Amino acid sequence: MPQTPALIALDWGTSSLRAYAMASTGAVLASRRSDHGIMNLPPGEPGESGTPARFEHALQNLCGDWLAANHPTPLLACGMVGSAQGWAPADYLALPSSSASLARSLTVVSRAHGQPLHIVPGLVQPGDLPNVMRGEETQIAGVLQSLAASGAAPARMLVGLPGTHSKWAVVESGTVTRFETFMTGEIYAALRHHSILGRTMVDTGVFDEAAFTQGLRVARTPEGALGVLSNVFSSRTLGLTGRLPGEAQADYLSGLLIGHEVAALAQVLLDGGLPVVLCGEPALCRRYAAALEVHGQDSPQICTDATPLGLWRLAQAAALV
Amino acid sequence: MPQTPALIALDWGTSSLRAYAMASTGAVLASRRSDHGIMNLPPGEPGESGTPARFEHALQNLCGDWLAANHPTPLLACGMVGSAQGWAPADYLALPSSSASLARSLTVVSRAHGQPLHIVPGLVQPGDLPNVMRGEETQIAGVLQSLAASGAAPARMLVGLPGTHSKWAVVESGTVTRFETFMTGEIYAALRHHSILGRTMVDTGVFDEAAFTQGLRVARTPEGALGVLSNVFSSRTLGLTGRLPGEAQADYLSGLLIGHEVAALAQVLLDGGLPVVLCGEPALCRRYAAALEVHGQDSPQICTDATPLGLWRLAQAAALV
Repeated sequence: MPQTPALIALDWGTSSLRAYAMASTGAVLASRRSDHGIMNLPPGEPGESGTPARFEHALQNLCGDWLAANHPTPLLACGMVGSAQGWAPADYLALPSSSASLARSLTVVSRAHGQPLHIVPGLVQPGDLPNVMRGEETQIAGVLQSLAASGAAPARMLVGLPGTHSKWAVVESGTVTRFETFMTGEIYAALRHHSILGRTMVDTGVFDEAAFTQGLRVARTPEGALGVLSNVFSSRTLGLTGRLPGEAQADYLSGLLIGHEVAALAQVLLDGGLPVVLCGEPALCRRYAAALEVHGQDSPQICTDATPLGLWRLAQAAALV
Repeated sequence: MPQTPALIALDWGTSSLRAYAMASTGAVLASRRSDHGIMNLPPGEPGESGTPARFEHALQNLCGDWLAANHPTPLLACGMVGSAQGWAPADYLALPSSSASLARSLTVVSRAHGQPLHIVPGLVQPGDLPNVMRGEETQIAGVLQSLAASGAAPARMLVGLPGTHSKWAVVESGTVTRFETFMTGEIYAALRHHSILGRTMVDTGVFDEAAFTQGLRVARTPEGALGVLSNVFSSRTLGLTGRLPGEAQADYLSGLLIGHEVAALAQVLLDGGLPVVLCGEPALCRRYAAALEVHGQDSPQICTDATPLGLWRLAQAAALV
């Protein structure tokens, strides 16, 4: 590395660990990734046992050279590393939540040698149907950082984080005031791999945009009022009636589900035409952007690689850097 | 058997074969069941090969003694035996459909020895989201037969057939004019066994009515407008926040899904307060009856064992008996 990092930022999830060495400007000097997510940790170093030793070993494996440098570089992590199955449990913080409130609530974990690890809390929205997030609060901070840098932050917006579980957060003047979760990605996978709908699907590896768009529109039709539990059956019956080949059915189903997600959002959270910013894997963000357009919303901004930016913003707010 | 049957009626599905020997009064003289559904056929008899031989063998296995009697007893079957993977493909008949139109469209399959097999067609509802049923058309005929016998058939009603895929059919003066499918049962199983929601569920084998009812109400809350894809996450978050033990989560999820199904039905098909008749497995029918009541509908009638009744009605309409 050409210069000493000011922060070692960790995005530590269920299935992977990503590490970023960040300069005092907030720029990423270097990044690395390992499969040592919290559900797949290595054993401890010889002579060391217990869960903390396994986390320490995963950390040393990936960025031991950064940690061994003579400078006491602060460490900040987000994600499932702060869950009950993580290195140490980090609270869920109640709404409204800003970067400042997150930064005031870091969990500090002592390490046998070197700097302590700071862990970002998750967020909880109480209520009859509670909502939680862990990791996405940092992505939202990254979106805010990115928009601030470009001078384009709307006073009020909806930040969408598509994924296995997509999160949609209303952000007002930099503060998360509400968020909702949709299990769309996981339900898609369950239907594709563990239901009769998957049996007639033929995998091509190529995105069928026409089938996807056909699916997106379903939620807007009169039959859309019957809801997802009913509409998904059309993936099979359009096949049985010779109108949707097996090669098109997976993207049709993807569109149908994402269309229902965005239709519900448009009704409940986007009533006033809130600007939308999407953050996540680019191909998935493009699917959601198409869904927003079909459901009458303006084209969203798309923001990628928000996590290191968010960790930087929170490290600044916590005066770690 | 004390008397010679007038009809051998077969309910031949994917995973099982049920046979009924029926008297000239329409009463069931005897019934039998085997696991020789169309996806689990035995090989043919020695020296016989090919798909028809395997169906014939399954039939002989279960009721060869009935078939060997000296009387040429007619044979009528419904279900997946008429699908593309069945003994012979039986058409899907377009709506509107009555017992008379089903009876005019039986597929006749010659057998090497003895009476031919008659197979009841399925139903298809064309449209942007087509719908099909196969087997349930016969259950509906059985419901009509049962109601006619009791003199209690409403001129217009909604017949609900809960199951892995539930079917809801509008029946007017004995004619099916519309039907819809909900994959609720299969989606429940996929979420329970193949999603993160299942991981925190603890199986007790005992129905938790309070949790089920709590789930039923979700579709009626303001959060219900976010839809199933969002609401199902509450099975997990209510657990994380200590408000729904693992032992209660499966029935909560069942209620949440059935509640959404019935809420959509109530909006789209039950607008005028149509009387409802449920037909199916009694415990599942009771869950749907509770759902209808929570969603403001009158208590439904519940009808069981409709398939032999329906086969009898269709055999009469086809002058097989």
